Amino acid sequence: MTCPRYIPHNAGICKKCWDVKTEAERELLEELNVLKAKSDFLHLSSINHENNSKSFTDVVLIASDAEAVTPPIHAHKIVLVSRSPVFKAMLENEMEESHRSIIKINEVSYEVLQNFVNYLYTAEAIVDEQMACDLLIMSEKYQVAYLKRQCEKFLASKLSLEKYLKFYVLAHQHNAKHLLDAALTKIITNMDMVTKREEYKELVKSDPHLVLNIHETYFSLYVAETSTRSTV
Amino acid sequence: MTCPRYIPHNAGICKKCWDVKTEAERELLEELNVLKAKSDFLHLSSINHENNSKSFTDVVLIASDAEAVTPPIHAHKIVLVSRSPVFKAMLENEMEESHRSIIKINEVSYEVLQNFVNYLYTAEAIVDEQMACDLLIMSEKYQVAYLKRQCEKFLASKLSLEKYLKFYVLAHQHNAKHLLDAALTKIITNMDMVTKREEYKELVKSDPHLVLNIHETYFSLYVAETSTRSTV
Repeated sequence: MTCPRYIPHNAGICKKCWDVKTEAERELLEELNVLKAKSDFLHLSSINHENNSKSFTDVVLIASDAEAVTPPIHAHKIVLVSRSPVFKAMLENEMEESHRSIIKINEVSYEVLQNFVNYLYTAEAIVDEQMACDLLIMSEKYQVAYLKRQCEKFLASKLSLEKYLKFYVLAHQHNAKHLLDAALTKIITNMDMVTKREEYKELVKSDPHLVLNIHETYFSLYVAETSTRSTV
Repeated sequence: MTCPRYIPHNAGICKKCWDVKTEAERELLEELNVLKAKSDFLHLSSINHENNSKSFTDVVLIASDAEAVTPPIHAHKIVLVSRSPVFKAMLENEMEESHRSIIKINEVSYEVLQNFVNYLYTAEAIVDEQMACDLLIMSEKYQVAYLKRQCEKFLASKLSLEKYLKFYVLAHQHNAKHLLDAALTKIITNMDMVTKREEYKELVKSDPHLVLNIHETYFSLYVAETSTRSTV
């Protein structure tokens, strides 16, 4: 937006431009309220909610965490297939006669699975850092792009020196591009400190290719910077 | 927001206040994008969509429009009960054994029912005026408050001299307070013209109480106005 009466010396904005901005803000607020109401309408009650726990469910999910036996989580096929292309392929290829399917999910705790399924109904999750890591893994496995993006965002906001490499490895393993970029930027900016850390030394042993990737990125940036400087 | 450097004569707004407003707008836009993504995530594919037409459905709705035989509309109980307390009561009181229920809905066309069910999945409907009236009736019957509000809003935006009384009657019959208020305001502001119309004369015959209600509101406003004038 340009303000024809803007005068740099007294840093003034004309009343007309101000009013246009105020109107734009009012319209945004209105749009926001409409979307909030729509979102509330589309929100399906959490299946964790006691009353709803078994209402018309047609599928059961079981967290198969090592040898532990965990309670079944009742859900609706329509919700699973709407949210995840993996569940869609899995359930739509089933024999039509099987009215009630059981899906066993390996290497996940009951708590994580419950949170994951709950998210598919509500688009909401109360997460700590560990839960966000676990949900990121689940969302990649079941291709729930929206949840994955939320987890990446949350984890990127928690990046600290101790976690740069941990999150970088996690993001690499689970194809989380946004988190990978965020962690890589932090690592490169703090290369001196990162390379001195114990986690770095361990990563060199366990996954040298990943460490090489960091150095190559660092190198290419360094070269770019140096060449800019030389041109100047 | 106050602007300490606001000078009425040249109608200027200081740069600082302008920046605060710009930041507020940026935040609103960001919030809007988050909500849009959430809404898209929660959106269930329309059941009208070919691929989804029968996926895991457990209930069938049939529009019973006079004697006409209309195609069944397949749906999911979880969606119906989540959106409508009436469907909730109806379906949750069913015997548990009935895996596939049939709900016959009287006095509604196939097209309206299809649009109504589709709305329960998507929170979206392409409507003309007649469809908005029909959906308003359905939303009142099945207590889908959000859809009802949308229909009222749409119809209120279409108010014209020919429709003041029609919409007023519709709103009264189907308990649509917002539309009722909007129509009543228009009627009272244009009493002279309204009382000359054919629809008015017909309404006097068919529902004198409703007409009396208009006059009473007009009278109470007139008295209020006169008393204000006398005090001044």
